[in-house]
Amino acid sequence: MAVRAGIVVTGTEVLTGRVGDRNGPWLAEELRTQGVDVGAVVVVGDRPEDLRAALAFLAGSGVALVITSGGLGPTADDLTAAVVGDFQGRPSAVDPALEERIAAIVARLGARRGWAMDPVATAAGVAKQARVPAGATVLEPVGTAPGLVVPVAEGRSGPPVLVLPGPPGELQGMWPAALASEPVRTVLAGAPELRQRTLRLWGTPESELAATLRRVGDQLAGLEVTTCLRDGELEIVTRFGPDAEAAHERLQAAVTGDFGDTLFSSDGATVDEQVAAALAERGWTVAVGESCTGGLLTGRLTAAPGSSAAVLGGVTAYADRAKEQLLGVPGAVLGTVGAVSPEVALALAEGARDRFGADLGLGATGIAGPGGGTADKPVGTVHLAAVGPAGTAVRSIVLGGSRDAVRQRTTTLALHLLRQLLLGGPPA
Amino acid sequence: MAVRAGIVVTGTEVLTGRVGDRNGPWLAEELRTQGVDVGAVVVVGDRPEDLRAALAFLAGSGVALVITSGGLGPTADDLTAAVVGDFQGRPSAVDPALEERIAAIVARLGARRGWAMDPVATAAGVAKQARVPAGATVLEPVGTAPGLVVPVAEGRSGPPVLVLPGPPGELQGMWPAALASEPVRTVLAGAPELRQRTLRLWGTPESELAATLRRVGDQLAGLEVTTCLRDGELEIVTRFGPDAEAAHERLQAAVTGDFGDTLFSSDGATVDEQVAAALAERGWTVAVGESCTGGLLTGRLTAAPGSSAAVLGGVTAYADRAKEQLLGVPGAVLGTVGAVSPEVALALAEGARDRFGADLGLGATGIAGPGGGTADKPVGTVHLAAVGPAGTAVRSIVLGGSRDAVRQRTTTLALHLLRQLLLGGPPA
Repeated sequence: MAVRAGIVVTGTEVLTGRVGDRNGPWLAEELRTQGVDVGAVVVVGDRPEDLRAALAFLAGSGVALVITSGGLGPTADDLTAAVVGDFQGRPSAVDPALEERIAAIVARLGARRGWAMDPVATAAGVAKQARVPAGATVLEPVGTAPGLVVPVAEGRSGPPVLVLPGPPGELQGMWPAALASEPVRTVLAGAPELRQRTLRLWGTPESELAATLRRVGDQLAGLEVTTCLRDGELEIVTRFGPDAEAAHERLQAAVTGDFGDTLFSSDGATVDEQVAAALAERGWTVAVGESCTGGLLTGRLTAAPGSSAAVLGGVTAYADRAKEQLLGVPGAVLGTVGAVSPEVALALAEGARDRFGADLGLGATGIAGPGGGTADKPVGTVHLAAVGPAGTAVRSIVLGGSRDAVRQRTTTLALHLLRQLLLGGPPA
Repeated sequence: MAVRAGIVVTGTEVLTGRVGDRNGPWLAEELRTQGVDVGAVVVVGDRPEDLRAALAFLAGSGVALVITSGGLGPTADDLTAAVVGDFQGRPSAVDPALEERIAAIVARLGARRGWAMDPVATAAGVAKQARVPAGATVLEPVGTAPGLVVPVAEGRSGPPVLVLPGPPGELQGMWPAALASEPVRTVLAGAPELRQRTLRLWGTPESELAATLRRVGDQLAGLEVTTCLRDGELEIVTRFGPDAEAAHERLQAAVTGDFGDTLFSSDGATVDEQVAAALAERGWTVAVGESCTGGLLTGRLTAAPGSSAAVLGGVTAYADRAKEQLLGVPGAVLGTVGAVSPEVALALAEGARDRFGADLGLGATGIAGPGGGTADKPVGTVHLAAVGPAGTAVRSIVLGGSRDAVRQRTTTLALHLLRQLLLGGPPA
């Protein structure tokens, strides 16, 4: 029987999408590596009654642990600690020693950032952040807010609530201390191993995969299989206990048999990771010449630590003049076939390779929209090219969706084109 | 009394963070413009019992409408329609006319994308997607999946459930039809107006704002005020009914009085929007020379439709050689003060302006980490420069956080530096 946890993410800014939630998914993945399965993430605004309802829902759903993120700041709308204390039947009071430690942190931070701090306001904020429910374990602040582990009051039953700060850096920094706290250790001690594997297909429609899953469905007992289509990649994730390893192998064999030509990853590696590893192995460098992706293609290639060893840089050239002057795209080509063409994608790739002195060049041009489309070249028209020691690859496509979606999906296509040039396998 | 809705986002890929949820926030904001307040967004995986529990939680919380997103695909793990039908007491069956319409869509899509489609597998997927709970309203597919409006069975009480597809483009495309459906119209008819305003401060610590909010707290009846600190911007969002407009004005007056020098937006406009508007108004162009941000700064400037009119492009130059050759950063400067210096930030900005022939140039250099830091220049060291007809602005700072966070926050700093050069106001 799996041990389960529930997560409450607080903050009206998250509920309304002004800030994307990064904590729920991060916690879900961390818990999974500990053998704990997350059943639900509930996002609520900064309203005490909504937070209380979410706590009651999760605590009543049979989970062994509830985790909250956010609502620990100095402002009055940050109310998680007090609400959790009440919910667990443990009234809060200021912890004077903690108050001193937080005051010292705030003073240090203010001095470093050059803040003009009003002493009364600061003291009120610190006192609020130092309020601790009776009997709770304090987790030392990573920013200014302490975390808390709040067991249910004696004589009542229910899971402990782990209270963590909202900023992802603070939450992640506090996680080791949370895992080491006695109530959390007790929960984890009961958790079995929970494995996860990911297979990735490039260009296979979801309906084809569904047929395979139906055919072998009765051989997959013990596996939780989920599939997800994104930017042309079809991801198959299985989660299972150690005794279902053979079932996972049966699934993998069936997928490999049916889709061997589009299966590009069976060890969880993303196309980004495969490209980075292939570049490192060969000692090759790459440079980008891009237009419709506006810098995002270079941004994606440089997202991983250490990428500057292989990625020399890129040029975003919107204007034709910039394509000519910075990347040497011939004016005659621009004049005849136009900037949105396979020829210009190739010239962008070659220009980037030459100007940066890289081994490989990657070029992207297209119409991200929503304006700029024509009957011949509708919005979503994209041309990509990759050039390198092993040859040349070009791809043209018309993508659907918003400007954002076209830009994003074009970077995925470009990564697959580069992968194809480096490793062979499924055509981009 | 506000009319409230609850949202269930389904999908193990969302729960585990492989895909970020964009639907919950989008729906929350759309509902707000209709006067409907969202109390909670519950994210669950592809498990029927978890989806059922989430529906029960929200339906039991007194909301007037429950909305689900996702789980309408052709694979067996997509089970939302059937679970919602059962939950509402309405058994599902295949709708033959709908089945034909979906089959036609799938055939058209397959032909366009060149899919090799197995007819049996395709038919099984189509039949699954054409199952409709008895008495439900069908919303025509935008992709391949229809939406549903499922009222509770006669003789039982509970809110209607609006079932929408997971891909954001499909969900958003179906929204007008959902609003026009009779059960949703009935809910909206009871909703009062709900206003929202946003004030943005640049560089004010949250504790200072907390003091102001405490001081005027008793004059703010009827306002829901939330604050959020992100990348150095402090956002104050108020939500209220029309009768609390005066209370909002009192809050705005207090914030303006206390933080007039850091209040850069009181009409909801972001720094990105202000920069774009200022460039358009003056007819000026801009180009970017960036290093540590790896293309993301250009990517951010080009995110909005039509940005290519003002943004000529950018160069990402990681290697010193690229900084020299593509942006004319003097080798002597790189050799003496090093690539991570205010001098090089300025040379990047000037080089980008000159090479692209732009009116303004923006330069960014720094150490995004996690490697590459030294005692003198720790990870997070960032230098920014903006040059233009109105002068020059330079900013140096040491940022905390992960590689991602440093890259992201540097783009925000650069936008504020550009804003300062264009509009004056709070220093970046």
